Amino acid sequence: MNKPFILRALGIVLLFEAGAMLPSAGIALVNHEKDMLAFAGAILTLLIFSLALSRAKLESNHIDYRAGFIIATGSWLLVTAFGSLPFIFSHDFPTFIDAFFESMSGFTTTGASVITDVETLSRSILFWRSTTHWLGGMGIIVLTLALFPSLKIAGMKLYRAEVPGPTKNKVLPQVAHSSRILYKLYISITAVEIIVLKIAGLSWFDSFIQTFGTVATGGFSNYNASIAAFNNPVVEYIIIFFMFICGINFALYFYLLKGKLQPLWKDPETRLYSLVTIIACLLICFNLITVMGYGAEEAFRKSAFHTVSILTTTGFATADYTKWPALSQGAIFLLMFIGGCAGSTAGGIKNIRYLILFKSFSREVSKLIHPKAVIPIRIGGNVVPDEIVQSVQIFFSLYFIILLVTTLALAAMGIDLLSSLTAVAATLGNIGPGFGIVGPVSNFAAVPPLGKLMLSFCMLLGRLEIYTVLVVISVRFWKN
Amino acid sequence: MNKPFILRALGIVLLFEAGAMLPSAGIALVNHEKDMLAFAGAILTLLIFSLALSRAKLESNHIDYRAGFIIATGSWLLVTAFGSLPFIFSHDFPTFIDAFFESMSGFTTTGASVITDVETLSRSILFWRSTTHWLGGMGIIVLTLALFPSLKIAGMKLYRAEVPGPTKNKVLPQVAHSSRILYKLYISITAVEIIVLKIAGLSWFDSFIQTFGTVATGGFSNYNASIAAFNNPVVEYIIIFFMFICGINFALYFYLLKGKLQPLWKDPETRLYSLVTIIACLLICFNLITVMGYGAEEAFRKSAFHTVSILTTTGFATADYTKWPALSQGAIFLLMFIGGCAGSTAGGIKNIRYLILFKSFSREVSKLIHPKAVIPIRIGGNVVPDEIVQSVQIFFSLYFIILLVTTLALAAMGIDLLSSLTAVAATLGNIGPGFGIVGPVSNFAAVPPLGKLMLSFCMLLGRLEIYTVLVVISVRFWKN
Repeated sequence: MNKPFILRALGIVLLFEAGAMLPSAGIALVNHEKDMLAFAGAILTLLIFSLALSRAKLESNHIDYRAGFIIATGSWLLVTAFGSLPFIFSHDFPTFIDAFFESMSGFTTTGASVITDVETLSRSILFWRSTTHWLGGMGIIVLTLALFPSLKIAGMKLYRAEVPGPTKNKVLPQVAHSSRILYKLYISITAVEIIVLKIAGLSWFDSFIQTFGTVATGGFSNYNASIAAFNNPVVEYIIIFFMFICGINFALYFYLLKGKLQPLWKDPETRLYSLVTIIACLLICFNLITVMGYGAEEAFRKSAFHTVSILTTTGFATADYTKWPALSQGAIFLLMFIGGCAGSTAGGIKNIRYLILFKSFSREVSKLIHPKAVIPIRIGGNVVPDEIVQSVQIFFSLYFIILLVTTLALAAMGIDLLSSLTAVAATLGNIGPGFGIVGPVSNFAAVPPLGKLMLSFCMLLGRLEIYTVLVVISVRFWKN
Repeated sequence: MNKPFILRALGIVLLFEAGAMLPSAGIALVNHEKDMLAFAGAILTLLIFSLALSRAKLESNHIDYRAGFIIATGSWLLVTAFGSLPFIFSHDFPTFIDAFFESMSGFTTTGASVITDVETLSRSILFWRSTTHWLGGMGIIVLTLALFPSLKIAGMKLYRAEVPGPTKNKVLPQVAHSSRILYKLYISITAVEIIVLKIAGLSWFDSFIQTFGTVATGGFSNYNASIAAFNNPVVEYIIIFFMFICGINFALYFYLLKGKLQPLWKDPETRLYSLVTIIACLLICFNLITVMGYGAEEAFRKSAFHTVSILTTTGFATADYTKWPALSQGAIFLLMFIGGCAGSTAGGIKNIRYLILFKSFSREVSKLIHPKAVIPIRIGGNVVPDEIVQSVQIFFSLYFIILLVTTLALAAMGIDLLSSLTAVAATLGNIGPGFGIVGPVSNFAAVPPLGKLMLSFCMLLGRLEIYTVLVVISVRFWKN
């Protein structure tokens, strides 16, 4: 299993997290905030642990699949736990569980909060809270791989464990190299949005925070009213645009930068994703105009914003959609189960899985008519191997069974059925808000501690696309 | 495709339905009800159509799979449409769609009603309404096969199209023969329950109606308050017992009658089904005692009644569970997605599918640890063929996608989210009541006409376990 390698890898991840806290610590320093001590304490703790882990004596660079799964799940758990230290040391969060929930919600880009009044938080804490989004968006391990080529031999196994989905289009055969390209793209998009938002009238600080929430499809804002706080249609359109493009497979932008429009334009997943966006947007827009009497522009803007926000699993809000007519609510509810594209920062079930599933429905029907036919499933001209088709089918079943069972567990804590169901859907899909007591103008503060732990686990399950976590917690994994 | 055979088979089914209306017509005659004319009209119409269909000139007894699917779907649609004639002719139902919904709900053993006050219906209409349950419980085609051995050559293909689930334990190789055995069992259980309920104090009429609703796991009663109307704990326990045994694979009783306890006792599906019943019952019972302050006996009785009623997809009620605490509501909600055993009269997803699914989860985890391993899935010692495993996985995904999309469509008609979601779950699972406006003390009268048609289609999809209907409505089916 190569324990020393696992320990060292985890040590590197923690070292990296300490570095990622420096900008937030800097903000605390510049603003003379008392939270400077919270960050100093957190960074010191991270360095001590990182040092301790890196003392493991490395004998080989080779790891097996099991080690890959342990590093992926372990990294996410450690980064989340240590990432909650500033929240704990700042005394802004009532309990460790609340701080852990917020940290998990940040790193998994869920964006669900337990804070009733975020506007009372210091700038440094707000900045760290949004930094967790940005770090988690593209994947902690992808990021580590981009920065530490020493891990590159083990790269593919680690990458597979963090990004287990039916992703195609690996940008380049070398994972460390393609990780760097993905991060360059991610940083560029981030920079562009920050500047555009600044031009639209936001302060630098607000631009950074909303951008981190957008490009990571996270959803944390520094205002209680989320994006509605700006009351600025231009800002809303900018954020709609950036949420939408961050829901598309980043590998396709790599080809775009090389002057090839074809891969993006012809990508079946991007097409389905765009189609879903257009249909849902028009449906809600029409509904808001006819039933709520909104003007055309406002209806379109609100509809487009929430369609894209929920579909990309961002979770920003400019309105309380739980007050909308039933059709719009139903559309939002359905979008919660779709999600963005594989290889993007968006979470959820993802469009590629629906594509594969629809084709396997169609194949099943053909098989019933012609029992002896052998029919391969093709996406964009390529045959999808049967084990991927099966794993997609199982993913769906697992997703809905986890949803139902966790809903029951939340209901057991006295939370009403619709709130329980959508709280689980919103965390498992890494979205953020749901319906009822966890609606877009509410938060998760009312959920009991055990419920918060369960939902934190759902966020991790959703972010690592279920299998990686399930493998690590399975008995069989530890047996031999 | 052998069109004459299809037409003749449909003619036989309609002839049989005319016969099945005779007892109801007799009740109308004895009670001097005006609905006698309604039945006379319906029976006459059936005979005319049956005669017209039987004029098709038969050239061969051989049919292919496509014909099997057409006969199965066609029979159910025709029987439902003609079965609604007494409802239409009696003028008890405001529109044809309402009558069709009630007929579909009856034949598919769903038990959802559009009638606000069933106690105003005549005895003959109530008897026919419950007869549709009894006929649909074991399957219309299974029944036709039992009665008309002339169809037996095509038997297996017809049987497969009506009972497409992963059923094992075919009682006997000859379908016509095993259909007869299944019906003998079904009639015996029916007779025993009628007598036991009579002894417990019900009138003969009430005994028949409640028995038809129980053994078919349907849920129609002749009282607005459902089983609560009797206010008789003994009656409730009797119905709990019969609902429970009718949720188990009938083939296992065949072995039991031959003195073999082993197949029933060791059956993995029956074990899972019993386990789910016990856990849900204890959970709700505990919840009702601690939160609602019920006495132990009352809590147990109410808990057992609704656990078994929802799990077996019967839908009888003795209380309004939408007023129960969140945990009990959550448990009822979860049970709506489980269902009874394959080969029983119960609907829903069914326990055998969960068994196969759990094993395929476990196999997927093993495959991630040992990518090259080939691991067969076994249930009760037998290897489950891979195509059945795949079809079970697809069934789950299809089930939940149909659920979500139909929920959206109902919400589009202005029905709130929870009511929409559970109305679809209750019809797709052939259960009957849901939550919100379609709760156990409400009915489906408030759903708009288009919604009733959609839900009728969901009932048919659920009863024929999705594939059969999907195959028939697929373009590919009709192309070549």
